[in-house]
Amino acid sequence: MSLPIIDLRSDTLTKPTPAMLEAMFSAPVGDDVFGEDPTVNALEQKLADMFGMEAGLFCPSGTMTNQIAIRLHTGPQQEVICHEYSHIYLYEAGGIMANSRASVKLLPGAYGKITATDIAAAISLDDVHACETSLISLENTMNKGGGSIYTLEEVRPIRQLCLQHGIKLHLDGARLFNALVVSGESTQAWGGEFDTISICLSKGLGCPVGSVLLGSKSDIKRARKIRKSFGGGMRQAGFLAAAGIYALDHHIDRLAEDHARAREVGRILENHPLVAEVLPVPTNIVIARLQGITPADLLQKLETQGIKAVRFGKDLVRFVTHLDFGDAHLIEFEARMGKIV
Amino acid sequence: MSLPIIDLRSDTLTKPTPAMLEAMFSAPVGDDVFGEDPTVNALEQKLADMFGMEAGLFCPSGTMTNQIAIRLHTGPQQEVICHEYSHIYLYEAGGIMANSRASVKLLPGAYGKITATDIAAAISLDDVHACETSLISLENTMNKGGGSIYTLEEVRPIRQLCLQHGIKLHLDGARLFNALVVSGESTQAWGGEFDTISICLSKGLGCPVGSVLLGSKSDIKRARKIRKSFGGGMRQAGFLAAAGIYALDHHIDRLAEDHARAREVGRILENHPLVAEVLPVPTNIVIARLQGITPADLLQKLETQGIKAVRFGKDLVRFVTHLDFGDAHLIEFEARMGKIV
Amino acid sequence: MSLPIIDLRSDTLTKPTPAMLEAMFSAPVGDDVFGEDPTVNALEQKLADMFGMEAGLFCPSGTMTNQIAIRLHTGPQQEVICHEYSHIYLYEAGGIMANSRASVKLLPGAYGKITATDIAAAISLDDVHACETSLISLENTMNKGGGSIYTLEEVRPIRQLCLQHGIKLHLDGARLFNALVVSGESTQAWGGEFDTISICLSKGLGCPVGSVLLGSKSDIKRARKIRKSFGGGMRQAGFLAAAGIYALDHHIDRLAEDHARAREVGRILENHPLVAEVLPVPTNIVIARLQGITPADLLQKLETQGIKAVRFGKDLVRFVTHLDFGDAHLIEFEARMGKIV
Amino acid sequence: MSLPIIDLRSDTLTKPTPAMLEAMFSAPVGDDVFGEDPTVNALEQKLADMFGMEAGLFCPSGTMTNQIAIRLHTGPQQEVICHEYSHIYLYEAGGIMANSRASVKLLPGAYGKITATDIAAAISLDDVHACETSLISLENTMNKGGGSIYTLEEVRPIRQLCLQHGIKLHLDGARLFNALVVSGESTQAWGGEFDTISICLSKGLGCPVGSVLLGSKSDIKRARKIRKSFGGGMRQAGFLAAAGIYALDHHIDRLAEDHARAREVGRILENHPLVAEVLPVPTNIVIARLQGITPADLLQKLETQGIKAVRFGKDLVRFVTHLDFGDAHLIEFEARMGKIV
Repeated sequence: MSLPIIDLRSDTLTKPTPAMLEAMFSAPVGDDVFGEDPTVNALEQKLADMFGMEAGLFCPSGTMTNQIAIRLHTGPQQEVICHEYSHIYLYEAGGIMANSRASVKLLPGAYGKITATDIAAAISLDDVHACETSLISLENTMNKGGGSIYTLEEVRPIRQLCLQHGIKLHLDGARLFNALVVSGESTQAWGGEFDTISICLSKGLGCPVGSVLLGSKSDIKRARKIRKSFGGGMRQAGFLAAAGIYALDHHIDRLAEDHARAREVGRILENHPLVAEVLPVPTNIVIARLQGITPADLLQKLETQGIKAVRFGKDLVRFVTHLDFGDAHLIEFEARMGKIV
Repeated sequence: MSLPIIDLRSDTLTKPTPAMLEAMFSAPVGDDVFGEDPTVNALEQKLADMFGMEAGLFCPSGTMTNQIAIRLHTGPQQEVICHEYSHIYLYEAGGIMANSRASVKLLPGAYGKITATDIAAAISLDDVHACETSLISLENTMNKGGGSIYTLEEVRPIRQLCLQHGIKLHLDGARLFNALVVSGESTQAWGGEFDTISICLSKGLGCPVGSVLLGSKSDIKRARKIRKSFGGGMRQAGFLAAAGIYALDHHIDRLAEDHARAREVGRILENHPLVAEVLPVPTNIVIARLQGITPADLLQKLETQGIKAVRFGKDLVRFVTHLDFGDAHLIEFEARMGKIV
Repeated sequence: MSLPIIDLRSDTLTKPTPAMLEAMFSAPVGDDVFGEDPTVNALEQKLADMFGMEAGLFCPSGTMTNQIAIRLHTGPQQEVICHEYSHIYLYEAGGIMANSRASVKLLPGAYGKITATDIAAAISLDDVHACETSLISLENTMNKGGGSIYTLEEVRPIRQLCLQHGIKLHLDGARLFNALVVSGESTQAWGGEFDTISICLSKGLGCPVGSVLLGSKSDIKRARKIRKSFGGGMRQAGFLAAAGIYALDHHIDRLAEDHARAREVGRILENHPLVAEVLPVPTNIVIARLQGITPADLLQKLETQGIKAVRFGKDLVRFVTHLDFGDAHLIEFEARMGKIV
Repeated sequence: MSLPIIDLRSDTLTKPTPAMLEAMFSAPVGDDVFGEDPTVNALEQKLADMFGMEAGLFCPSGTMTNQIAIRLHTGPQQEVICHEYSHIYLYEAGGIMANSRASVKLLPGAYGKITATDIAAAISLDDVHACETSLISLENTMNKGGGSIYTLEEVRPIRQLCLQHGIKLHLDGARLFNALVVSGESTQAWGGEFDTISICLSKGLGCPVGSVLLGSKSDIKRARKIRKSFGGGMRQAGFLAAAGIYALDHHIDRLAEDHARAREVGRILENHPLVAEVLPVPTNIVIARLQGITPADLLQKLETQGIKAVRFGKDLVRFVTHLDFGDAHLIEFEARMGKIV
């Protein structure tokens, strides 16, 4: 078989293209713990410049960049307000509490998004019994909301609340470029609204490893020390950072292709008898609500056809398109789905 | 005026009766940090015996007994399942996260109560991304649920879940005796269902200071060391413990009077034009939902009539009956409420 | 026997005098969690005024006041510089790390005291690998240094270092009044040199329970919230606070008697064949270095004569004089020591 | 100039050889967060097998592997016993306390090594005031002790103490292979004495990034979850792991060359007028005590000759030999040192 496995479990699964590998292979490197890796420094600067922010810090994962941001902005007896579906709450192994000893105030909201109105009602200020709100965290796109997109119009009133109350605003931008490719909004405009932004390079952008935290010079200086205590300081990390530079130069615009294919995946699923509904597909994530079958059983049927996806809730299954899923895979996906009954 | 203030803000406001004060004043004491205060030891033993549990630990507050229990049963990357209205989450200043670095999974549920069915669906076991459920915490009566009562019938299937999955079960029994006086269930039966129970002496029981944590000998030994790090070890604490012994002997049955008066307070409020509805009043807590007035404005009107209560949410006000609120106060309360329009 | 036990284990063992007990049980009280206990408020204000500091906070123990101060002034990746014999490091059950996640830099020094010169060499400032020094903590008198005394002349250059580097200075004043009675220095002068001071009422001052943390209004406001998360908020705590007010009025000057008797205890021990040397006895603590016998064995021999003391290191035993150890006890002590061979 | 810079600051500064680079970029990779990177899996298994331990976990740094081990074996109110020069205490940014809330008991000892006798006297067991010893951590070679070596003969009585008291034993093996190349002791024998071992690949072994934690299956499973909360999970990490496999196959024996050159560096320094003494040079670390010059001033003079080293204490400077420092560099080093006066 020419396409043995169609793996739609995540966009983290991609492997570097030959050109990306060539960029990695030929990168100049140095010891980043001494601040001397030129490629790491170039990547940090490049992303900071793109977003009009002062500084950047390369880290092994988006979980680390998020967790460092949370430690920068909160502490014991303080709280983070975020959506109840947030990656920082659900998928970072209790890091908010373990690393920062902060509480969470979890808000509901359609497609994983929270609004300024709901946040305003939830903010906790001066109260000896309660945790003071010190951080609001947004995720764009919103993974568990089906790859949904925040617009600047939605973010700005949230930023106003933050400025009014002295609360910090963090963006988990694990898939931010997927959002910007759709909305057409600029990195500069987004950079202006947040205290810190986490950009993941190893999802849609196709790098093997790494995320960058963006923020002010003083926050990034403190972030470097927090990274040290987590053990996130790497030596000749330029091999990894080079992939990031390559991806920023070559892999942003092509995210539109992933989105187009995701819409096709959504269409195919919507017409499948085991699928009750498909959530809107604004970006590269497709969430299907099943009928007449459990996620575990559907995943098993998919496996027999060489398709992989993940359970994403009681009756939900998630498919993610990415760099390694091309038009040929899409045709094959439709054909194989037809064989599942 | 013979009754200058009718203070229904909380049952923590009571002052010792002359007889309780006499018991305190004449108690033999010693240095409890050396384990040599006979009255503290007697109180701990008395409560442990009442509940059929192995040991007890006297602490300055119910927040401390709860926080020690949470530290006993959880840690980083673990979580507590409890109702979203729980005292441990809302009113203990972020202690779950600050003291134990544990996460919370907050469940909704009528009158502040959670069910075995909902808990079963929420339990998280072996998953590298998520926090493992290590503790379920119930509150009886449930303060923010309107003084609602858990019965053993409701608790037992929750206990079964715990035993099945190796999860600990804690009871925040801040007002447990209020519940037992109504349900008629025994302390022995309740003691048999929990790993740890926190009993507060300074609420309905009328003591000035103190709570007792009950548990196994090994848990209470560890609890003593956690108490030390919080600074909760007191020297001649027997003066306070003596009030607890007195209250256990004389103030449990009389809680029924508080409940009867609370029902009357509920009836009076229900008939008031500024009150939309009153939640069921199973014990000594009365929660009124307002109409046509904000809590802040109503509290101000109440103050002009010498009545005190507390805001308890967006449109809610709470009244609590207690040892210092007698029949004469009730008559006066009704009269004064009639003057508020 | 008229004096069955001579208990010199600690000055925490004292029981209230009849006059103190009378003051306690006639005190007006209220709910201190609501800020309404007049006696607690009066004690906090009285001590703050004595030291010329802005505010005070009554807590169940000196461990809690110390631990709150450490949380106020440090956090993760910061460090406390203190003597290696400090109570906060040795006897507070790991609270520095458990409560504040701060590191310690432990300095040696004669009689448990550290000097500005040694501190200056130890301070750590901006270094990504190391913990930044954010707090220096002194203990006066120094328990494990034999009740040794810091003078203002020693403290002032340490304070200068703190001001120069933006480091906070805390005083564990568990037995501060013992020091001041000897040095004649004023509370006002001492209050001027520290960010926070912990005053213990249940040691030489003879109260049953309690310590007060002194500091700026903003620090004490934050302290109140930290106390809440530890569970240190007590309801009608005025009964305990009243003892504190009484002690401040009546029990300070008499500490000189404890010191005089401690010197006599020292003299008696020095002449005993099982004692190699006695450390200088500036206040109420006597530390004897044994010869030809282990601490455990000596303590057993003492017990047979109705004398209690504590092991205080490999070959050391500690005796502490206090309010319940009068001249008759001293005579009896000498007599009984003569019977030990 | 053919050798523009002789960089002896650290053995972390090396860059991959062409053959290592070739191994890296031809490695098969997968998503290690899904457990599917074959090269990462192979490296973990290879090291575990070498040491006769059950499992391994690849991490971005030795700080992370150490910090995970400390979290595995300690917690609040527990303590780590280690040498006062330990990397885990001095150079991991307060991680012991920040990540694990554990205390430290720091022991002195010649050349950075601690002995079973001193440890036995320091162990703290059941005491409500103190932290219980739950972990002993050794470092081999001992960086700040001058690259000193522990032998199995020294380790075994320490292991006996651990087994006797239920204490865990961790080895910070950042430069363990440097020690084994000298002692001739086997990895299997060392693996048998420790609960966890951290092996660093990016020091003498010459890899760009990475360390591996070795331990039991159950500890490594828990370690994987701790790594997740630190954000240490990487995606296609096989590129980095491939360097590790290459180094284990090709770069262990050659450490003897680094040691030989380090002895030469030591000899050269010893004969230099600005050097008072050179510590013994058992491995690849050379520590020189200066005379008549401060470290800062000497480092500046070295810079003018194109030599780099690091300040390592008040009057100490450290030089480290490594893969990128060959015989030609050594000749040049001697020549340049001769020009410094």
